[in-house]
Amino acid sequence: MDCCVIPLRHGGLSLVQTTDFFYPLVEDPYMMGRIACANVLSDLYAMGITECDNMLMLLSVSQKMNDKDREKVMPLMIRGFRDAAEEGGTSVTGGQTVINPWIIVGGVASVVCQPNEFIMPDGAVPGDVLVLTKPLGTQVAVNAHQWLDQPERWNKIKLVVTKEEVKEAYQEAMFSMATLNRTAAGLMHKFQAHAATDVTGFGLLGHANNLAAQQRNEVAFVIHNLPIIAKMTAISKACGNVFNLVQGTSAETSGGLLVCLPREQAAKFCSEMKSQSSGAGGQGASGGAWIIGIVEKGDRRARIIDKPRIIEVPPRGSQAANQDNSSTSPDPNPNLS
Amino acid sequence: MDCCVIPLRHGGLSLVQTTDFFYPLVEDPYMMGRIACANVLSDLYAMGITECDNMLMLLSVSQKMNDKDREKVMPLMIRGFRDAAEEGGTSVTGGQTVINPWIIVGGVASVVCQPNEFIMPDGAVPGDVLVLTKPLGTQVAVNAHQWLDQPERWNKIKLVVTKEEVKEAYQEAMFSMATLNRTAAGLMHKFQAHAATDVTGFGLLGHANNLAAQQRNEVAFVIHNLPIIAKMTAISKACGNVFNLVQGTSAETSGGLLVCLPREQAAKFCSEMKSQSSGAGGQGASGGAWIIGIVEKGDRRARIIDKPRIIEVPPRGSQAANQDNSSTSPDPNPNLS
Repeated sequence: MDCCVIPLRHGGLSLVQTTDFFYPLVEDPYMMGRIACANVLSDLYAMGITECDNMLMLLSVSQKMNDKDREKVMPLMIRGFRDAAEEGGTSVTGGQTVINPWIIVGGVASVVCQPNEFIMPDGAVPGDVLVLTKPLGTQVAVNAHQWLDQPERWNKIKLVVTKEEVKEAYQEAMFSMATLNRTAAGLMHKFQAHAATDVTGFGLLGHANNLAAQQRNEVAFVIHNLPIIAKMTAISKACGNVFNLVQGTSAETSGGLLVCLPREQAAKFCSEMKSQSSGAGGQGASGGAWIIGIVEKGDRRARIIDKPRIIEVPPRGSQAANQDNSSTSPDPNPNLS
Repeated sequence: MDCCVIPLRHGGLSLVQTTDFFYPLVEDPYMMGRIACANVLSDLYAMGITECDNMLMLLSVSQKMNDKDREKVMPLMIRGFRDAAEEGGTSVTGGQTVINPWIIVGGVASVVCQPNEFIMPDGAVPGDVLVLTKPLGTQVAVNAHQWLDQPERWNKIKLVVTKEEVKEAYQEAMFSMATLNRTAAGLMHKFQAHAATDVTGFGLLGHANNLAAQQRNEVAFVIHNLPIIAKMTAISKACGNVFNLVQGTSAETSGGLLVCLPREQAAKFCSEMKSQSSGAGGQGASGGAWIIGIVEKGDRRARIIDKPRIIEVPPRGSQAANQDNSSTSPDPNPNLS
């Protein structure tokens, strides 16, 4: 499970908590703080929990930074973390900071819940539909952006993508990673979600497999569609598929929720996700939502079909996004062959 | 405060939690795990909380370790952490592990409490007595032990201490750091403690100052006695006082509780601490307890008197300890001039 759920000594309550920490992957320290916080909270959101009682921040300051950089960077990162926590209706009341060769940023999120406040991620049934609430490809976007300054790497991908497209994809990835999965968590209750997880380090397929493995019913997850930040599929192919993006194992950071919904609820879930999104690429956007597959009877594993449909998700606010909103709409006719 | 205390939405309950992580300072990975866990839990114990609902473990594996060392060291460290958690009546249900240049070990401790389960550290009154539950000098002992292999450093202290004494002091420091402050936390309730904190990175005086600053009453803490692991004062002096040990600012790891007790309760607290200690230096020992000072009217600061009495605490199980138990007994007549 994404969180630990501890039955308490008091009145049927449970303590649900999670921790995550990692290393910076975007250049903007404020956005990095937001991403770290969104990533920690995401484990609560994956259980349909929309409230968080407390956060702790885990930080290390790099010993290699000079005082000037440190005083500029660290307060911005802390500010971003705190702002995202506030957006999540919670606050940061403690933590620990150490010196380290590398910068570390992360945190702990804790909430005390009544049983009806969380959805145990084990109730998928055959016939359910799988929905994903953020596009894939954040790792590819972050790496491609670094390669703008590495001619040897850049030469491998420059035939399939422009510098402008890489910059747009990087922005999209950054905003997507900084987006809280809180709206999705709330809608999980409204549309009776049966199970969910968040997509992070093991990639879509890795987390889908973990989720499938813990189901009470004998089910399998079959994924038909892959919503991916525009151009990231081409980049991934051009550099020899090292990311395993369309294979579903490219790592994501602070990815979307993968939600199992009753078939009749999935389109409504997606539609409401979209209407609650600002659509302007704002940090408060709820992300998108795409129907990506189905739940069938099976041996508690997940797979991606041969030749899944790639949904190219244009960067929010880009010309492509303004001209054509269809790819961020729920797909009314997912390829469920 | 050592912990954050978050009022919950449910029935007068509070979430109390704390996190700490740092780098290994003893060579034995199992003991290092125990120390890390004792250090995390200590913040709860300082608030008189004896139960912990859940722990998370925070770990990093060093990228510089080869596979063989990693497979040997990390499981032992995790085992030590888990064993100490179990001794504290709790368990580790989650956490996060990353790769880092340095090994990191730490955790998160959380508990949901009723108001009578914790003691807010702000109730000291003039006339209270200050008790410390572990001897000082862990940093000096750990450093001196490293100097056994550094002739240049060793030459500075070899006139005041033998290699055997350094090894014994190191063992004592290791067991002391691995000792849970849980017994002391329980006795805080029994003997109506008014406030407490645990002694860690800022040293005795640093934490005493923090505690004094947050008192509701206008009080000052005056420290007369310093229980210090045997020979550490001599080492500290011999190397030019770089540790500031007798000045009270030498860092401690997983140090004891500094407890403000009503005058008439302090000796009983110490006596019970001693009787609950195994006395054999076992890992389950409760530590010792020494009356070290008084609370008087003042400006919410702490100070150590000129020429405080140094109590040389012999290593548990050493000949000195067996011959003479007086130094681990509560002092019936503290120098309160």
